[in-house]
Amino acid sequence: MNIRIVLAYDGQAYVGWQRQSNGISVQEKLEEVLSRIAEKKVQVEGASRTDTGVHALGMTASFRWDRVRPSGSELHRAVNALLPGDIRVTSLAKAPLKFHARFSAKRKLYRYRILCHPTGDAFRRLYTWHVSSPLNLFAMRKAARSFVGKMDFSSVAANPGYDRTTMVRTIFRCAVLRKPNDEIHIEVEGDGFLYKMVRTIVGTLVDVGKGKRDAESISTMLNSRDRRLAGKTAPAQGLYLVHVKYH
Amino acid sequence: MNIRIVLAYDGQAYVGWQRQSNGISVQEKLEEVLSRIAEKKVQVEGASRTDTGVHALGMTASFRWDRVRPSGSELHRAVNALLPGDIRVTSLAKAPLKFHARFSAKRKLYRYRILCHPTGDAFRRLYTWHVSSPLNLFAMRKAARSFVGKMDFSSVAANPGYDRTTMVRTIFRCAVLRKPNDEIHIEVEGDGFLYKMVRTIVGTLVDVGKGKRDAESISTMLNSRDRRLAGKTAPAQGLYLVHVKYH
Repeated sequence: MNIRIVLAYDGQAYVGWQRQSNGISVQEKLEEVLSRIAEKKVQVEGASRTDTGVHALGMTASFRWDRVRPSGSELHRAVNALLPGDIRVTSLAKAPLKFHARFSAKRKLYRYRILCHPTGDAFRRLYTWHVSSPLNLFAMRKAARSFVGKMDFSSVAANPGYDRTTMVRTIFRCAVLRKPNDEIHIEVEGDGFLYKMVRTIVGTLVDVGKGKRDAESISTMLNSRDRRLAGKTAPAQGLYLVHVKYH
Repeated sequence: MNIRIVLAYDGQAYVGWQRQSNGISVQEKLEEVLSRIAEKKVQVEGASRTDTGVHALGMTASFRWDRVRPSGSELHRAVNALLPGDIRVTSLAKAPLKFHARFSAKRKLYRYRILCHPTGDAFRRLYTWHVSSPLNLFAMRKAARSFVGKMDFSSVAANPGYDRTTMVRTIFRCAVLRKPNDEIHIEVEGDGFLYKMVRTIVGTLVDVGKGKRDAESISTMLNSRDRRLAGKTAPAQGLYLVHVKYH
């Protein structure tokens, strides 16, 4: 049986989704729990790596399950009972045998939360990037349009060796949204993302919002394929994998 | 010059407002910062003690300030720049000389956030009390009315030695509110509170909501002045000092 699950997690305690030698990953926690329930090794495939400290509202993962019990809602409850409180399985269901969380994924939506406020907020410091100066959303929206399309995103990727095949990705949408409580959200939807790509896009857009660079400079930067022309990588704690689409 | 400030803080890293020998308090952090700016010892009076791990949205404090500069908005900015991100001063203003954050306080409003959901939420576990079973709000509201009035609250106070004078307090309002995203808030407004009183009221109301005790049992419990008849103390991370009223 093939199972598809959706997870939300607070990334602050983890080195990201994928197993790493330098710390605890969400994948490792989930595999531990599933293996304990199955009484044998269970391997999980995640739709996406998320970096150290990055959060998820809707990470999708899949795994094979050959036990009759627990299954379905019983398994769902058992997994949540054994997982730590900062990782929650929000849905668990049987999937077609050919479903694979990573290879079947068509689109991923990321959201980046900026708290734009002079002094910040005691309760959101772990869940947003605090920017104390005002941001020009008109300029940011203009700049954001330059990221939409199918192109080589080398100039907004850290560590290009991470992806050995191609640096070409398609971004379907890059939106700068004003939200309640002094938040600005940047939503980026694409067919895939290079290492630290969303956070570099955000860092670059914030430079535009602060007036440190022109909206027009984005196309030149993308054409250059030179990471040094982009802005700083925005911090991990503002980034959320919102959901993964499969059709 | 007498200064009145309002603070918000995430209580998870602190032993509460008041200086303690067993850990770092919010008062200590604030006095450190003010003393550093004043280049001499500054003592701060807070409106209320908050317990270890309890949060504040609107703690009020007062202190004497005899420096010409920085003062006003300059001082406000300097304090926030030096305080850690989990403590924020939300307002700072000159107050009449006779104003004292504790002695002038007339009413305090506390809010308790319950997350009533089968599996909980990865992002709210540090800021709510997760209750996984459904709660009967009708019964809780009926029970809540019994806490309103001027009476001896010994049966919902931990460690009665904490307050050596009287266990009589006046509760003006005790409301059970259904909120978005599966939250239930319990708001309690009073002229003062005994040690762990709000959290014991909440623990008792949740027992009523679960059907473990009758709404009618509250009056008997209060009349008994016996702490053993009340419910368990609700955990600290759901409690917020919302604001302190001075008139």
